[in-house]
Amino acid sequence: METRSLLRYVFLLISGLLLLLFTSTWLHLPYTPSDKADFLDCTKYSPWCTSKNRIQSKSGPDQTTTRKPNLRTQLPHHPLDPLTLQEITKTRSILLSHPPFSTTSSFTIHSLVLQEPDKPEVLTWKPGDPIRTRQASVIAILDNQSHILTVDLSSEKITRHDISSASGYPTMTIEDMTTATFAPLVDPIFNRTVRSRGVNLSDLACLPISLGWFGKKEENRRLIKVQCYSMEGTANFYMRPIEGLTVVIDMDTKEVVEISDRGRDIPIPKGADTDYRYAELKNKPLSMRPLNPISIEQPKGPSFEVEDGHRVKWANWEFHMKADPRAGVVISDAKVRDSDSGELRRVMYKGMTSELFVPYMDPTDAWYFKTYMDAGEYGFGLQAMPLDPLNDCPRYAYYMDGVFAAADGKPFVRENMVCVFESYAGEIGWRHAESPITGMGIREVRPKVTLVVRMAASVANYDYIVDWEFQTDGLIRIKVGLSGILMVKGSPYSNLNQVPDHEEMYGTILSENVIGVIHDHYITFYLDMDIDGADNSFVKVNLARQDTDPGESPRRSYLKAKRETAKTEKDAQIKLKLYEPSEFHVINPSKRTRVGNPVGYKVVSAGTAGNLLDPHDPPQLRGAFTNNQIWVTPYNKSEEWAGGLFVYQSKGEDTLAVWSERNRPIENKDIVVWYTLGFHHIPCQEDYPIMPTVSSSFDLKPVNFFNSNPILRAPPNLEKDLPVCTPAASA
Amino acid sequence: METRSLLRYVFLLISGLLLLLFTSTWLHLPYTPSDKADFLDCTKYSPWCTSKNRIQSKSGPDQTTTRKPNLRTQLPHHPLDPLTLQEITKTRSILLSHPPFSTTSSFTIHSLVLQEPDKPEVLTWKPGDPIRTRQASVIAILDNQSHILTVDLSSEKITRHDISSASGYPTMTIEDMTTATFAPLVDPIFNRTVRSRGVNLSDLACLPISLGWFGKKEENRRLIKVQCYSMEGTANFYMRPIEGLTVVIDMDTKEVVEISDRGRDIPIPKGADTDYRYAELKNKPLSMRPLNPISIEQPKGPSFEVEDGHRVKWANWEFHMKADPRAGVVISDAKVRDSDSGELRRVMYKGMTSELFVPYMDPTDAWYFKTYMDAGEYGFGLQAMPLDPLNDCPRYAYYMDGVFAAADGKPFVRENMVCVFESYAGEIGWRHAESPITGMGIREVRPKVTLVVRMAASVANYDYIVDWEFQTDGLIRIKVGLSGILMVKGSPYSNLNQVPDHEEMYGTILSENVIGVIHDHYITFYLDMDIDGADNSFVKVNLARQDTDPGESPRRSYLKAKRETAKTEKDAQIKLKLYEPSEFHVINPSKRTRVGNPVGYKVVSAGTAGNLLDPHDPPQLRGAFTNNQIWVTPYNKSEEWAGGLFVYQSKGEDTLAVWSERNRPIENKDIVVWYTLGFHHIPCQEDYPIMPTVSSSFDLKPVNFFNSNPILRAPPNLEKDLPVCTPAASA
Repeated sequence: METRSLLRYVFLLISGLLLLLFTSTWLHLPYTPSDKADFLDCTKYSPWCTSKNRIQSKSGPDQTTTRKPNLRTQLPHHPLDPLTLQEITKTRSILLSHPPFSTTSSFTIHSLVLQEPDKPEVLTWKPGDPIRTRQASVIAILDNQSHILTVDLSSEKITRHDISSASGYPTMTIEDMTTATFAPLVDPIFNRTVRSRGVNLSDLACLPISLGWFGKKEENRRLIKVQCYSMEGTANFYMRPIEGLTVVIDMDTKEVVEISDRGRDIPIPKGADTDYRYAELKNKPLSMRPLNPISIEQPKGPSFEVEDGHRVKWANWEFHMKADPRAGVVISDAKVRDSDSGELRRVMYKGMTSELFVPYMDPTDAWYFKTYMDAGEYGFGLQAMPLDPLNDCPRYAYYMDGVFAAADGKPFVRENMVCVFESYAGEIGWRHAESPITGMGIREVRPKVTLVVRMAASVANYDYIVDWEFQTDGLIRIKVGLSGILMVKGSPYSNLNQVPDHEEMYGTILSENVIGVIHDHYITFYLDMDIDGADNSFVKVNLARQDTDPGESPRRSYLKAKRETAKTEKDAQIKLKLYEPSEFHVINPSKRTRVGNPVGYKVVSAGTAGNLLDPHDPPQLRGAFTNNQIWVTPYNKSEEWAGGLFVYQSKGEDTLAVWSERNRPIENKDIVVWYTLGFHHIPCQEDYPIMPTVSSSFDLKPVNFFNSNPILRAPPNLEKDLPVCTPAASA
Repeated sequence: METRSLLRYVFLLISGLLLLLFTSTWLHLPYTPSDKADFLDCTKYSPWCTSKNRIQSKSGPDQTTTRKPNLRTQLPHHPLDPLTLQEITKTRSILLSHPPFSTTSSFTIHSLVLQEPDKPEVLTWKPGDPIRTRQASVIAILDNQSHILTVDLSSEKITRHDISSASGYPTMTIEDMTTATFAPLVDPIFNRTVRSRGVNLSDLACLPISLGWFGKKEENRRLIKVQCYSMEGTANFYMRPIEGLTVVIDMDTKEVVEISDRGRDIPIPKGADTDYRYAELKNKPLSMRPLNPISIEQPKGPSFEVEDGHRVKWANWEFHMKADPRAGVVISDAKVRDSDSGELRRVMYKGMTSELFVPYMDPTDAWYFKTYMDAGEYGFGLQAMPLDPLNDCPRYAYYMDGVFAAADGKPFVRENMVCVFESYAGEIGWRHAESPITGMGIREVRPKVTLVVRMAASVANYDYIVDWEFQTDGLIRIKVGLSGILMVKGSPYSNLNQVPDHEEMYGTILSENVIGVIHDHYITFYLDMDIDGADNSFVKVNLARQDTDPGESPRRSYLKAKRETAKTEKDAQIKLKLYEPSEFHVINPSKRTRVGNPVGYKVVSAGTAGNLLDPHDPPQLRGAFTNNQIWVTPYNKSEEWAGGLFVYQSKGEDTLAVWSERNRPIENKDIVVWYTLGFHHIPCQEDYPIMPTVSSSFDLKPVNFFNSNPILRAPPNLEKDLPVCTPAASA
């Protein structure tokens, strides 16, 4: 047994190394799990072996009238269009001819994306105009230093080359993450430990876990912690942790720095009934009446167009969208058509997920460091996998690909990473029926149809569904859904009645020997609002109780609205308060409606959670951008990432919280609003073995932006216009 | 001109009185605006003239497989089925043979509904069993006294007859409301005042406004305030207030008690572009790309059944639903099928809208009293009008009628008052894709389909859309949408730049001479949770920061969950706190999951608003049930209406807040949870002339109720099963 395992391990190691060599010169083949080009049978052996395949899914059905552009020949058509395949290749070749990159191959590309032109250039551009400036922004690591470069694609010159002196490192490459999961296997102690826990090395599945920053011991080299699971008997290895075993790896040298094993007495949970794949479950009883097929149908096609793959036009909205390896989806230059004048009016110059912060609430050895910053550490877009047509997005969705650069600077395609679709849920846009009191017999109701831009990032176990939902009434809803699989902890207990102190479990017992550990999720959005122009102000409209004077009124109290314009950043560090309610308006102080109100949009919170950690706790220093729900900063091209440009192992000296403390003027300036959506998550058994989606959202909502309801003239649904449908032929 | 108006007024008055006489013996004709039976041409003359028609709409298209029962022959099939047409008629005739009702006709029936049997009788009943007990609960006013009666329909006896000694009066009848709007017309001063404001009496539309309670002056008789509008040139008369003119009417004698006119200097707003009817607007330009038809399609039909018009079976849910004149929709005996055992498990015995509270924030003469309690004063169900098929509810909806009693005790039918439909918005039930880190090539996604029970109450200007949404994962979402038309205030100002003090406007200028007054909405729900049985406990699971001891961990802090069971009512008076977060569980302390967690459901708040009024303000004494967001009381059959049984003009001595102060034991008891959903509304121009829907919701969510995710085995959407659709023939 020992010998067989050792042989298998050697085979695995050699195969893995061969695969590494092979893939670095690979063509970008579509991903197919049974592809003959794989050296390893990945359905049988360790799961990470296919991760270098630069995965491409099969295309979804293209039921839209808009055709996807051909990526092989795609040219930029808009100043904000992401770098094309050719442009990435060109950037790489310019870089490779530039010292020191021309003289060594021992560097890795951590980011290679469009350097967006300055706002005025973008805003003055019109369809048909030439695209003047194309620049790439590159972040590379060479000799443990982070290089920041700007590559001008017209002049083929490098116009900026700086070396970062900040504490953090760039976003990991996918290659960093996957090779980290191999690395422990070179260590015999690790392998013995795994086997002593009853796990075959061939059943091992390991995860690379960012380790945050907890002091000097972990500084000055790129470290990562690796924890492993048994995938014996289930695809859902997350539910079978080898608890307490943590390996610290140097990401650059691949060496094992430290092994900690404090879980010897904790059994590997059995993982019974944890597989969630339909192929495994479809013959098991469902325990409920089956649902008849139901579908959002638009046989005349969707009502939106996607020009050149990026410019979306729908109802009264026009905007640009692109995939980004760090942010996921970026919405730019969103404009809405005025219902009176017919003109397109600017609302938001750029909106995106800037950073996430996911602290787990367990201070013990194998858990304390789990304080993920998924965008800056893992790449929120890099982790966004191809969407599943008909399930991730309904029929008639349009799918957009992401084009990203690998660690070697070569481009790869993440197909169907983003979808766009119209949604109708039976909701009501507006309605009024005259009541029996007036008896006027009026009943006017308008259906509510929206346009959704969606992506789903799978940051290892968790799945984040991010929706940008546009409404015809001018509202933009930004919604985050959490699904996927919990990060769980092995436990000696199989029933709560064995647990001596329930509070010391750090979570909920979900199944025999499985604890769902309490954690928070914070998702921080960058919202560069430009209401009818760049110069805007941020106004708090506070509702406060006003007591009446004696004799003034039979009422003793009422609520009064008081407006207060934020002068500087500290005026706009907002902690939401249920009992000191305010509206938060971004207004254009230079433009008023017909009756004199400043035009604006408001940020409307829905359910959210506040961060309660000690602000001096090391993770909270790094996640300090979650100290408030709302911040407002003056526009600064270099302040886009709330946790800092270099987040990995950073000490938190470059966060939104630090920038905001500079207290710069923000009145009548080009301002950026930051909103953090929070969730406290105490797991429950319903989250096991895979979590039903939990969602929350916030809105950007017109407030005296229009002179009146912009959908007053929207038509109702009429029977004669609706589709004629029959059951599927298979039925 | 004066003479013509006077003649018209006399004609109106006589016609109105004739109509009153005529309708009291009327058959229940379907409502048609141009019905020849109308004496008045209501499209031309005052709008309220048809309000006595006991409106019935045309039926919606019946696309469900479930047939609506024939109301003329309908018998009760379940102990909770509402009174049938025949039972209402029988109740009336029993009542009319009982003194003092047998000797006078000068009484009015304010409520005549099923007196629900005791819980054990309902819970032991099985389909096919005889319905043993049928009783009617009647509230009638006679000689200014409120009589409470129980009529036993089997024995044909009155088994209870009490006279209320409480301060308040019963819910108004529709007849109270409509006759109040006529009443000012007998007063020459009123008529002169109206004409002096430039309004023809024939253009007058008046509203009956509950006046709350503000001291002795208004006690001991049923009073109402009437305010009027001009409907000249628009169906949206609400936007043309005759500001400052308030008439106090005695509802029983119909006499004018007092006229206050403090608005002589305020012009009637012109009301340009305020009509919202499609017939008036369809030829005006839309200012946006038109949307192609979009529809939720289920050509194999919906997946739910409605047995005998009231018992809904869908997916893993079964529940009873009925229409109620006060609550609107009542959901009873909701049970969900266990995904392991297949057994139906009890979740909620009864859920309904118990009361609303809508205080306006203007202390001046014509506004201070606007502090509506729409369920207890107006009847939330009485104001729920027929739904508009295809717009209020999508295709394949099932429509349920309400059968209510009029003031004379005769039954009438509110057709299509409630709809039931399946919704699919492209949302995701759960998903997981393996990330590039593991590269396992797994992508499993399940679509989310829900079942919605909807009604829409039009309490004069405002429309409340109430949804009970059932999810297959066991969650119940209760959602309230606000739409309809603002209650606005006339103003001398046509532009904000004329207003000397913006804070003294009590609202926002929406259009020339129109102010949208700030107000709150609170909707309080009665939720008799019965988790696997009646005896439950209420547990707060508080998340609080725990600081680590020195040397314990590199972390300084984390969040720890602490469970605390509420012993008595005061332990469960909950004000939600963003920075002292808790989960609120209703558990069955006698039942545990396989791994030992108590089975439960949690109340999950989303966006809401807290009430900030002075607790000693007279309206807040009456609306004291909004002092907390959550309350828990022991089950008590007489405690169903959070503002008290008799709300109209009550002093607030019978509210949930008063009951809760008794501090009764609630641990391991049959308990009722009360949740209040709040909205602060600072109007904006987009709300003019009709408001885009604003929604909020809260959830009842399983928490360790199931052993694991109950929708693990749900199937994905497959192309082969989906409908085949073509554009409509008309397209």
